[in-house]
Amino acid sequence: MSRSDDIAHLGHVEILTDRFDESLDFFTRVYGLKLSAKDKTSAYLRAWDDYEFHTLKLTRSDTTGVGHIAYRAASPEALNRRVAAIEASDYKVLGWDDSDPGHGPAFRFEDPFGHVFEIYWETRRYEPDDDDRPALKNTASRYQQNGGAPRRLDHLNLLADDVTEFRRFMETCLGSRVTEMIQLDNGRIGGCWFTVNNKTYDLACTEEHGGGNGRLHHVTYATDQREDILRAADIFLENGVHIETGPHKHAIQGTFFLYVWEPAGNRVELANAGARLILAPDWDPVVWTETERKKGQAWGLKTIESFHTHGTPPVAEKD
Amino acid sequence: MSRSDDIAHLGHVEILTDRFDESLDFFTRVYGLKLSAKDKTSAYLRAWDDYEFHTLKLTRSDTTGVGHIAYRAASPEALNRRVAAIEASDYKVLGWDDSDPGHGPAFRFEDPFGHVFEIYWETRRYEPDDDDRPALKNTASRYQQNGGAPRRLDHLNLLADDVTEFRRFMETCLGSRVTEMIQLDNGRIGGCWFTVNNKTYDLACTEEHGGGNGRLHHVTYATDQREDILRAADIFLENGVHIETGPHKHAIQGTFFLYVWEPAGNRVELANAGARLILAPDWDPVVWTETERKKGQAWGLKTIESFHTHGTPPVAEKD
Amino acid sequence: MSRSDDIAHLGHVEILTDRFDESLDFFTRVYGLKLSAKDKTSAYLRAWDDYEFHTLKLTRSDTTGVGHIAYRAASPEALNRRVAAIEASDYKVLGWDDSDPGHGPAFRFEDPFGHVFEIYWETRRYEPDDDDRPALKNTASRYQQNGGAPRRLDHLNLLADDVTEFRRFMETCLGSRVTEMIQLDNGRIGGCWFTVNNKTYDLACTEEHGGGNGRLHHVTYATDQREDILRAADIFLENGVHIETGPHKHAIQGTFFLYVWEPAGNRVELANAGARLILAPDWDPVVWTETERKKGQAWGLKTIESFHTHGTPPVAEKD
Amino acid sequence: MSRSDDIAHLGHVEILTDRFDESLDFFTRVYGLKLSAKDKTSAYLRAWDDYEFHTLKLTRSDTTGVGHIAYRAASPEALNRRVAAIEASDYKVLGWDDSDPGHGPAFRFEDPFGHVFEIYWETRRYEPDDDDRPALKNTASRYQQNGGAPRRLDHLNLLADDVTEFRRFMETCLGSRVTEMIQLDNGRIGGCWFTVNNKTYDLACTEEHGGGNGRLHHVTYATDQREDILRAADIFLENGVHIETGPHKHAIQGTFFLYVWEPAGNRVELANAGARLILAPDWDPVVWTETERKKGQAWGLKTIESFHTHGTPPVAEKD
Repeated sequence: MSRSDDIAHLGHVEILTDRFDESLDFFTRVYGLKLSAKDKTSAYLRAWDDYEFHTLKLTRSDTTGVGHIAYRAASPEALNRRVAAIEASDYKVLGWDDSDPGHGPAFRFEDPFGHVFEIYWETRRYEPDDDDRPALKNTASRYQQNGGAPRRLDHLNLLADDVTEFRRFMETCLGSRVTEMIQLDNGRIGGCWFTVNNKTYDLACTEEHGGGNGRLHHVTYATDQREDILRAADIFLENGVHIETGPHKHAIQGTFFLYVWEPAGNRVELANAGARLILAPDWDPVVWTETERKKGQAWGLKTIESFHTHGTPPVAEKD
Repeated sequence: MSRSDDIAHLGHVEILTDRFDESLDFFTRVYGLKLSAKDKTSAYLRAWDDYEFHTLKLTRSDTTGVGHIAYRAASPEALNRRVAAIEASDYKVLGWDDSDPGHGPAFRFEDPFGHVFEIYWETRRYEPDDDDRPALKNTASRYQQNGGAPRRLDHLNLLADDVTEFRRFMETCLGSRVTEMIQLDNGRIGGCWFTVNNKTYDLACTEEHGGGNGRLHHVTYATDQREDILRAADIFLENGVHIETGPHKHAIQGTFFLYVWEPAGNRVELANAGARLILAPDWDPVVWTETERKKGQAWGLKTIESFHTHGTPPVAEKD
Repeated sequence: MSRSDDIAHLGHVEILTDRFDESLDFFTRVYGLKLSAKDKTSAYLRAWDDYEFHTLKLTRSDTTGVGHIAYRAASPEALNRRVAAIEASDYKVLGWDDSDPGHGPAFRFEDPFGHVFEIYWETRRYEPDDDDRPALKNTASRYQQNGGAPRRLDHLNLLADDVTEFRRFMETCLGSRVTEMIQLDNGRIGGCWFTVNNKTYDLACTEEHGGGNGRLHHVTYATDQREDILRAADIFLENGVHIETGPHKHAIQGTFFLYVWEPAGNRVELANAGARLILAPDWDPVVWTETERKKGQAWGLKTIESFHTHGTPPVAEKD
Repeated sequence: MSRSDDIAHLGHVEILTDRFDESLDFFTRVYGLKLSAKDKTSAYLRAWDDYEFHTLKLTRSDTTGVGHIAYRAASPEALNRRVAAIEASDYKVLGWDDSDPGHGPAFRFEDPFGHVFEIYWETRRYEPDDDDRPALKNTASRYQQNGGAPRRLDHLNLLADDVTEFRRFMETCLGSRVTEMIQLDNGRIGGCWFTVNNKTYDLACTEEHGGGNGRLHHVTYATDQREDILRAADIFLENGVHIETGPHKHAIQGTFFLYVWEPAGNRVELANAGARLILAPDWDPVVWTETERKKGQAWGLKTIESFHTHGTPPVAEKD
């Protein structure tokens, strides 16, 4: 299935934290995002070259995980087409929401596994003040030195009991296309990588093995170079951040990665895909077998156990 | 103007050379492309991760410069829509061509400055043999070590007497959108950067100051990392290649660049844009003033004179 | 103990292989060394910026492991001083050898664990022919593109049953100083890193756990940048080389590393120490406790089992 | 002449500034050094992995340039040998100084061009407090993220009317050896690169063309990777620092470089030499001819005019 072009890109992700202050300190000082605004319940963050007001909404909560996932439509008409398609589907519709200061009305709906999505057209561009005005007018704000300082939001990974069903949801509601996937020997799909544009993926879904529902596996921002990630590893080390795995190169998608846990336990990644893009309009999904996956990551690193089980919110009996 | 989505991506560029053997040796051994096929008049080359049979057609000629520029359509229907739009325009139509072994029928047309373009849908995917089969099935062929070894075709730059008119051509025929441009004090547009997808640009046009017609400024392939370009600089140095300027960072588009001349004099670039993409569907073109351009490149490097005058084919009185 | 300054640097290492042709193909085409000469029994190899005729002697054998380790003295007088010190010691003296075409007379002696060392003054500088003459006269030969293309020999690691005793040998015979070491809870030294100059280390010795004698753990060449190692990882992957562990960063010495096994099973490393040097003349050895080592490598990677047991020649019951 | 081994390494450089506050802000926040201490007249700075209390003494003054250059001896005996050699020479002796809080008694002397040198043995190691304690005990302090964050002091460059005479001074007083030099057609030495250890150079002297006396050309700190310098270029850009030239690669010594001017006008560099070291005890100086130098830097960048004339303190009629 070719992509519909109605959805332009992943817009932002809302992350829940039961350690709001520590999480905010991590994301701004160590991970390297910038704070656009903060209210009683949430902080609105963005990478230095994200053009919108926020790409990460960090929300104070009694749990962790993902609050909602937002995609921006390609036009007002495209938004209407998507809303019609979703309303015509069998998926749960939550209706219009205008609670975020970072964009206009958003149409909310839910996947079969409890993840809340929203799509919107009207947005709020980030307007840098004098202190944050970049030297080069083609960047959204000053390049910042703090922490990992990723350039932009890249993707997120959600856990679901049935990846095949999740795929139907993404194709139906967002018109996403699949770029790579894992075909398990038992006939199930172990994981699926989706994109709505030329990025190799903006959302991945892997099979839930932790027993939870509506869980988040990780959220990722992109760095300009692989060296930025090696440097970030030292920054995480110096700041006592739990480095789960990496830096290393994924076999799937070939992305250079580094996974850490923010203070509340949500897994966050820094990644670099090099110059890789999906430009072919008729790209055939790359299908990985279970045998191929057993080889580990690109350079042979074995996938560590927690990567298969840890998600947020945590599931007591599994974590 | 929002992009039409009818055109998927830049497909390939045909380069003319009056030193065919030296040029072919340069592109394969030093610049680092792979040879897909070769006939009496042309060699068909591609970067190691280009998915099509060729992205560079190197053609034996008594001159230099660009033979034709090819874009791949997003679907058969999209191709038909574009053909209709071009036929309805006032631009010169050259009709259908099926001379290239790398793709199906291509509809050819010409810009007002003598550059030949073509659009096509049917393509020939590169099929690696055992020697060229990659270790990771999501890459088009083996990562190769020779020379600069760029990953994929990135963009080209054409010279035109009237960039404003060239812009109308690109918007009308390809539905390209402008991401950045130079506004001269004399009211003219000094340069314009176009894209049909999420790449920051796939074609640039700068004002012709050399007095020629239908000239090429340069063709560029993308590397995964900036370090690949620093390494390539040493390779070019060891091979006696004329390094014109760089490595350095462009102010416009922020691309890290290195320009060299292949044996016949055609300018070729290696570039890396980091993680920068144009994801906003309503991106406002960044407009650079003449004063801003006088600051030189991002880190202050002055643009060298030959960059303003050298194009191919050469124009005696200017080069 | 301050260093004696009598020994200038590690000169070369002789590696034995029972798969001579495959090993030679690996070292020249994949690992990226250059062939200086070859005779019936050995091939003489060097990195592109090694100033001597060879830094790796690859010798046809019915086993694997290390043949001998050579250090170059700082002067003829320094060589005599070292010879006198060694002869006055209780270590086994093998006498003068002039079998290598790459240097003059070498004085050979043996450590208590069966490793043969030699020291020499007269050497044979590598003289590049026209094809190998570098563009910059301050490099020993052309920068080459093949494989990992490390810049120079860096260090080697030997296994010994008693690292404390090995340390006495290095200090007595070579005047080496210890820069870092592992202090085990059982009172033994688990590993010791030595240097004779400003390099952080040129030889390491770790406790033999495989049950062998006179075994080699690995030989290492240095790359200019960490990115060269990430790139090499892809080259090893494409060439089916067994990547044992890495790329990652060592906690001890902070070196960025990648370990692979050459066709005969000898472990070889590519490493980059960044700008780190030991400049302090009174450097106090950094002592790591067993608890600290349990944290794994710098960014948390657990040391894999084979790293503790695999050495060459292999010991059947342990490997 | 082989090196004497009496001098271990360049210890620190004192820089004068007539814009103390701006200069201190630059060195700590933008260039990326750490502040060890500050008194009424000076600030004592070091890179994050410099083992001594300070490697840069920034002193409030009514002018700019270099205050003094300090080298650390290899031992107390070595210090005495050097002092005797200097006192036996015809060079100006200034006697013992103990004004610096960062080390013990220093023996001061002067070169024929007005540069003050000192040598010392007793030093004060940097002792990190809890906030600055590194995660890895083999680094001198926490890896810091601010600014360029170089790893250690690397070298400085002084201007002198007669480089041949300056060379005699360095060999006589410090036992430095020459690794590379420029032989001008007029028979004079245009520049000379010196080292007392395995670094490719720790001090360079180039012919004074600005008409001044005792002037400084630049001071340099080393980064771990070339990418750190590309990143620093963006940081300098965002902070409005005057980038004079680079990033690029020197032909002489092959160092990757970036030169900027700190607020008072003193030129400072960030450099990376990759894995290049001078290990040969009998290294023959590489001699560059005027013709070879006319080729510009390694990749063809022409040396800009200010590089030949700008030094500190400035000389009115030349700057």
